Formats: sequence, structure tokens, C-alpha cells
Amino acid sequence: MTVRLPHAMPQSEADALKAREKAMAQQLQRDGVWRHLWRVAGCYANVSVFDLPDNAALHDTLSALPLFPYMDIEVQPLCRHPSSIHDDDR
Amino acid sequence: MTVRLPHAMPQSEADALKAREKAMAQQLQRDGVWRHLWRVAGCYANVSVFDLPDNAALHDTLSALPLFPYMDIEVQPLCRHPSSIHDDDR
Amino acid sequence: MTVRLPHAMPQSEADALKAREKAMAQQLQRDGVWRHLWRVAGCYANVSVFDLPDNAALHDTLSALPLFPYMDIEVQPLCRHPSSIHDDDR
Amino acid sequence: MTVRLPHAMPQSEADALKAREKAMAQQLQRDGVWRHLWRVAGCYANVSVFDLPDNAALHDTLSALPLFPYMDIEVQPLCRHPSSIHDDDR
Amino acid sequence: MTVRLPHAMPQSEADALKAREKAMAQQLQRDGVWRHLWRVAGCYANVSVFDLPDNAALHDTLSALPLFPYMDIEVQPLCRHPSSIHDDDR
Amino acid sequence: MTVRLPHAMPQSEADALKAREKAMAQQLQRDGVWRHLWRVAGCYANVSVFDLPDNAALHDTLSALPLFPYMDIEVQPLCRHPSSIHDDDR
Amino acid sequence: MTVRLPHAMPQSEADALKAREKAMAQQLQRDGVWRHLWRVAGCYANVSVFDLPDNAALHDTLSALPLFPYMDIEVQPLCRHPSSIHDDDR
Amino acid sequence: MTVRLPHAMPQSEADALKAREKAMAQQLQRDGVWRHLWRVAGCYANVSVFDLPDNAALHDTLSALPLFPYMDIEVQPLCRHPSSIHDDDR
Amino acid sequence: MTVRLPHAMPQSEADALKAREKAMAQQLQRDGVWRHLWRVAGCYANVSVFDLPDNAALHDTLSALPLFPYMDIEVQPLCRHPSSIHDDDR
Amino acid sequence: MTVRLPHAMPQSEADALKAREKAMAQQLQRDGVWRHLWRVAGCYANVSVFDLPDNAALHDTLSALPLFPYMDIEVQPLCRHPSSIHDDDR
Repeated sequence: MTVRLPHAMPQSEADALKAREKAMAQQLQRDGVWRHLWRVAGCYANVSVFDLPDNAALHDTLSALPLFPYMDIEVQPLCRHPSSIHDDDR
Repeated sequence: MTVRLPHAMPQSEADALKAREKAMAQQLQRDGVWRHLWRVAGCYANVSVFDLPDNAALHDTLSALPLFPYMDIEVQPLCRHPSSIHDDDR
Repeated sequence: MTVRLPHAMPQSEADALKAREKAMAQQLQRDGVWRHLWRVAGCYANVSVFDLPDNAALHDTLSALPLFPYMDIEVQPLCRHPSSIHDDDR
Repeated sequence: MTVRLPHAMPQSEADALKAREKAMAQQLQRDGVWRHLWRVAGCYANVSVFDLPDNAALHDTLSALPLFPYMDIEVQPLCRHPSSIHDDDR
Repeated sequence: MTVRLPHAMPQSEADALKAREKAMAQQLQRDGVWRHLWRVAGCYANVSVFDLPDNAALHDTLSALPLFPYMDIEVQPLCRHPSSIHDDDR
Repeated sequence: MTVRLPHAMPQSEADALKAREKAMAQQLQRDGVWRHLWRVAGCYANVSVFDLPDNAALHDTLSALPLFPYMDIEVQPLCRHPSSIHDDDR
Repeated sequence: MTVRLPHAMPQSEADALKAREKAMAQQLQRDGVWRHLWRVAGCYANVSVFDLPDNAALHDTLSALPLFPYMDIEVQPLCRHPSSIHDDDR
Repeated sequence: MTVRLPHAMPQSEADALKAREKAMAQQLQRDGVWRHLWRVAGCYANVSVFDLPDNAALHDTLSALPLFPYMDIEVQPLCRHPSSIHDDDR
Repeated sequence: MTVRLPHAMPQSEADALKAREKAMAQQLQRDGVWRHLWRVAGCYANVSVFDLPDNAALHDTLSALPLFPYMDIEVQPLCRHPSSIHDDDR
Repeated sequence: MTVRLPHAMPQSEADALKAREKAMAQQLQRDGVWRHLWRVAGCYANVSVFDLPDNAALHDTLSALPLFPYMDIEVQPLCRHPSSIHDDDR
């Protein structure tokens, strides 16, 4: 997920968007839906792992993010790796 | 990490390589170094997260994998995201 | 899904692989798992839509195909479109 | 088909465009022309299958969509696959 | 030749540009210079074949088109194919 | 259509393939199916325009070419351009 | 690191940004953090080598640069090469 | 060197920029620095060969061009070819 | 023009090919056809400028080169630049 | 510089090549020509900075490396950055 805010957006509008994005991201983490969230060093971008029952739920969650209209998102479908030492796909 | 074994490799050689790779991957997971390991659905590829003190340790670990000569590896430097609800970069 | 058989593969081996692939593809269609299957005109490639409960099942199905070692597969996660006239994601 | 509405477009204009697009998409689905329509999870994009007699009819249909000036469209020519269990290219 | 008119261009200006482009395209076709002109289905783009004595004449012709400032043009140098049944490069 | 014959192919086999390809290409031109055929200067490649009733016929024609297993083919769906001075899509 | 200042930015604002960027770049060089800094000939871009304890410190440093919102940054994780004649990764 | 002037730039400003660019290009040609200059047919772009003592001089020359802020420049380091019939790298 | 000789080619065969290529390149230079020839520093590749009456002559010349089957060639159509101080396209 | 040794190369031949490459790399470093040499973590690749009088010397140096036939090399022309705190381009 790479964020590209227009340079012309007023600072106050950008700050409000980011505050709402952060609140929702933290709520989704507490709900166990947004399972991992990392910053990509040097970029306004993150690598995230979501745990949702199906593609429709994933789309509803991502498209409800306040920064969704300003993000380039690339989705990779992941699952448990046969060499994992865990029983599930944590 | 995408694996491309040559079609000409004998099956027994490929099986031995994969067994050694799996054993090392599981040891590195137990050591806490290979922190996450997911299969990319539909590909002979994985998405992995490593926890190592620096780039030199990362290179030593990756280049010691039995399948390293047959893998295309793309490294993304990650760190804790400011919106993470955790104190560290888990 | 683009198929690349090595030119050096004996014709009989290629024919046997394709026959097994076709049998499995047709069984998966009858099971309702391989929901759509189109030929891309001018290419040894297809566009397919699968209906499976999760990414793990998708990977198991794709990696069990006889031609899997010779295919480049790109997976796009799809779901029902809000403008669809159907209630499900058919 | 990926949609890129300019951020500067007034919300009311965007809403009106989308409503007209949805109405036309549903009419074309009822007519059997827009045979399949899926949302790409995580993107403002869709994967669609059209059933039209020739390329000219396809172009006329696509270029008449209200969102056409704001869409990147990539057309792949599909046909019945020899492993399909159906007699036609459904 | 792919055309990208800015969304901000007034409709009347765009219409005038397109009318002048069409008139010049048809004159060049009548002159035998713009030998073939096809629409790429689903895109505001065309595939064209020009018959001009050299690269300088080609550049002069293309850069004189009213839509030239708004077009991405990719030139492929073509010639008669040895398997053609024609004596020239028609 | 770009041709990539393996360097290891015996010259006699390559010559036979090319002779069969040329014969079929010329027959298809005489039939009016392979409407245009140009060499791309500097490449072992051509730009071709086919006139066939639908995508299935196009795929059958292309996949029957002797060089088909050695070609990278990119299909662009074309149709009559509204600025064409001809009534059809010649 | 490639810099893309919007053409619409007033010259005085651009000059102020660049002055602050230069001051910070020189301070980081004196601190031993920004170890190497080269101009890419012909581009408004540089190649830089940073010496920082971890990815988080790297991200904090880069994202604090005055030109960060206008830069495309690609990070490559480097370490000592086994053929280096130095004991460290200078 | 590909030039991309913003469509919003007033015609008089664009004309003045181009006139200054042309004057400087011709002076650099007379000085023997800008050794070759070709138009790429069909594009607002050129292919140029410069003869300068080092990369710093090349950057100073290119970045002093009036159109530099509007150009995408790709530099390829060239030298005398061993099959050249000339003693220098003319 | 980038050359890729297979690693498996015997050294004597490669040397003979290169000697014939060099002889032909020098003859074409003496004929004024291969107007410029530069080595790309660090690559087994060159940048060349040809002066030929049309695309057919260009293709005949390039495809007659002994290394043609082992080269990736990208052709850019060039012509005199309006800012050139020369009357022709030298 | 990315190294791609063929999997079919005998281990002893690969080891001998690498030993010769290492010896030459270290000599060039001692000579001050190969100024910097870093490993790219996770890849059989390096990032290097050379200090040579011109492009011809650079090509001669790179093409004399024992691994040159097996390397993909991308050259970026660098020079002193105006924000550097050093007087030269170290």
C-alpha cells in the first residue's frame, strides 16, 4: 500500500485524513483483522497482512480506509506455507 | 522469494534440496530469525519476514539456504509502522 | 495461466501431460471449482475463474495440476461487483 | 478496467457519473452483452467478460460507458477453451 | 498512437481539435500517405501505417497533426516481408 | 509476432519449418485471411493484420502455424476507425 | 533518490526547500550518517549511502528530509562484500 | 532526451524557452561539445552525443539547458568501439 | 544492439563469428552505411547510426550481420533535428 | 553488477573463476580504481563505484573481469554532488 497525497491538499485536510486512517488501522489491528503492519523504510508505504474470510470482506475493509482514494494497493493472496512450524497461517 | 528449479534437475536431487531447505527454514523459525513464512497462492514462491541485526546477517542467512542458487529474492527493508499497536516491529 | 513446455520435451511426454491436465480440468469444472475457462486467442494460455473457500485451497488445487511446473500463473483476487445484477459472485 | 477519477472532480459530478455507469452496466448485463463483472479486491477496478459480435461492437459499447474517459482498459481476446466442458464459450 | 486529452480541456476546444485532426487524417489518407488507420478496440488509440519517403517526412507529418501534443506515439519501422504475396510493401 | 528459434535446432529442421510457414502464410494471404504482413526492420518479427470472423477462428489459425511454438504473439483487437475514408475496416 | 518538484511551486519556496535540504544533508554527512553522496549526471537525482543502525533509523532520517515529499526513493540493503579489502563496510 | 512541456504553459513562455534552448544547443554544437543531435521521428525527443571531459562537465552542461527542468534524460556512457575504423571515438 | 552469445558456443566458433562481424562492420563503415559505431561502456553492446535509403535496406543490412541471430536490436528512426547546425542529418 | 553463473558449470570451474575475480577485484581496490564495493543483501550482486579517467578505461576494466561474460552490468555516470562536504567526488 503506497500513499500518494496530492501536493495541493491543504495540510489540515491531510492531517485529518491521516488521523482517521490511524484510528481505523489501530481498531482493525485490535480486531485481529489487520494482522501485521510494517513501514517500508524510505517510502510513504506499508506492507500489511490481513486476515479476512474472503475477497469481498477484504475489498470492503480496504475501500473503507480514509486514505483508500490516494493509495496504490497490490494484493497478494497468501496462505500457510508447508514449511511453517505453525499449524495455522499466522 | 521465487524458486525456479531447472526442469532438467533429477527428481531425487530436487527432493533432497527441498528437504534440506525445509529443515533449515524450520530451524530458523524456531530460532526466531525467520519470523513469518507464507506461501503465495498459485506460485512456487513465498513471502517471508526475517528478524536479523543487520544486512550482513541477512545476506549470510539467505545465501546459506540450500535453494539460494535457484531463487529470485527481492528484499524490502521494513520497520515498525507508527500506526502499529505494538511497541516493537512484530 | 501461461504454459511454457520446454522444446526438448518428447512429444509423447507432452501429450500425456496435456491429457492428464485436460482430464483434471474437466473434473474440476464438473465439481464447480473451475468455474470459467477461456482460451486467450493466439497464446498457449488461458483465463480462468476458480471458486474455492480460501487461498490454501486455491494453492492446493493449482499446484496439483499436471502442467503446474510449466505454468506462469498470476492470481487476481475477485469478488462480487456492486453493479452486478446477480446476488452472488457468479 | 481500472477507474481513475481526478481528485479535483466535485463529489456530486462523480456520484452522477457512477450512477449512470451502474445503470448502463446493469442494462448491458440484462441484455447478455456484459456477461461477467467482478470487482478486483482492493482496487477501484473490475474484470469483465463481454459477448459481442465483433471488435467494432466492443469498441462502441466500451466507449459509450460514462466512465470511459476515466478508465484504463486492457482488452484480451478470449474464446472457447478446448478443455471446457461446455459447447460454447460461456 | 494513444491520445490523452487533459480532462480540464473545454469540450468545445476538444471538439475543434478532433475535427481538425479528422480532416487532416482523411486528407492524408486520400493522398496515400496515411495508408492504414485502425481503431484499437476499447482504447482512445489507433494503429496506423504511413507511406513516406524517409524519417524526416514521417516526423514532419506526425508533428503537424493537431492532436500531436496530446499523443503518445510509438514508431515501428516496417518493410516488405519476404513471405508477402505482393511485390511491394502494401 | 516475434520468432525465437532455439540456437540448438539443426539448420535443416529450421529450414523445413520456415518453408512450411511461408507456404501457409502465402495461402492464408491468397485466402484473404492474413490481410497484411510486414517485416519489422532489424528483427526476426512481423506485424500482421488478420481478417477472421471471431476469436476462436483467429486462435485456430495462429496455433496451426508451423512456427507457432516458437513465436511470442501479442494480439490487438482492431476495428474500423471513425476517421477512415473507407466504409469497411480494410 | 530522484527529486520531482512541481513546476507550479514558486521559485522562492523551491529555493528555501533546497537550502534546508542542503544544510541537513551536510550536517548528516558531518555526523557520518550520510556516508556517500553523488550526483547522477544528467538527472536531478543522487546516489547515496547511509550508515545507520537499523531500518527504523533509516526511515526516520529519510522522512525528515525537507525534500522527502517530492522524492522517489529506492532503498537497496548493502553490506560488506567478501572481496572487499577493508574490514568493515566502508 | 524527451521533452514534456506542461500543457498549461503559456505559448509565449514555451516559445521563449525553445528559442533559448535552440541558441544554446547551436552554440554547444559549434563548440564541439554537443557532437551529434538527431530528432527521434514522431516524438518531441532527441538522441544526442556529447563530448565532455568527465561526468561533472556533462551534468553541468545538461542541467544548464533551458528545457532541463522539463526533460527526461537517460545517459548512456559510450566509448570507441574496437571495430571502429576511426582512431578516436568520433 | 546487444550481443548474447550462448555460453555453450565453442570459443573457436565465437572467435570466427566475431572476426566476420568485425570485417563486415568495417566494410559497411568504409561504405558510409554504418555511419557511427560506439561501444556501450560495461556491456557487450553498441550504439550505431545507419544511413540507408529505406527500412528494407536497413533490414537487409542488419539481418546479414554474422552476429544477427545472437543480437537484440532496437531500431529508433532518426532524422535531422531543427536545431542542428548542419544542413543534413550527419 | 549481477552475476548469473549457469547451473551446469562444474563447481571447480566456478570456484576458479571466482578466485580469479576476487584477486583482480582486490588488486583494483588497492590501485584505487575500484573505489567502493558492497554486497547487495540477499543477491549474488554488488554495487560498485569506479574511479577511472574516461568511459573507454571503464569498459576495458569491466570487460577484463573474469566474471564479465556472466554479469549483467548497469552503469550510472556519477559525479560530485553540490551538497557534498568534500571537495572531490570521494
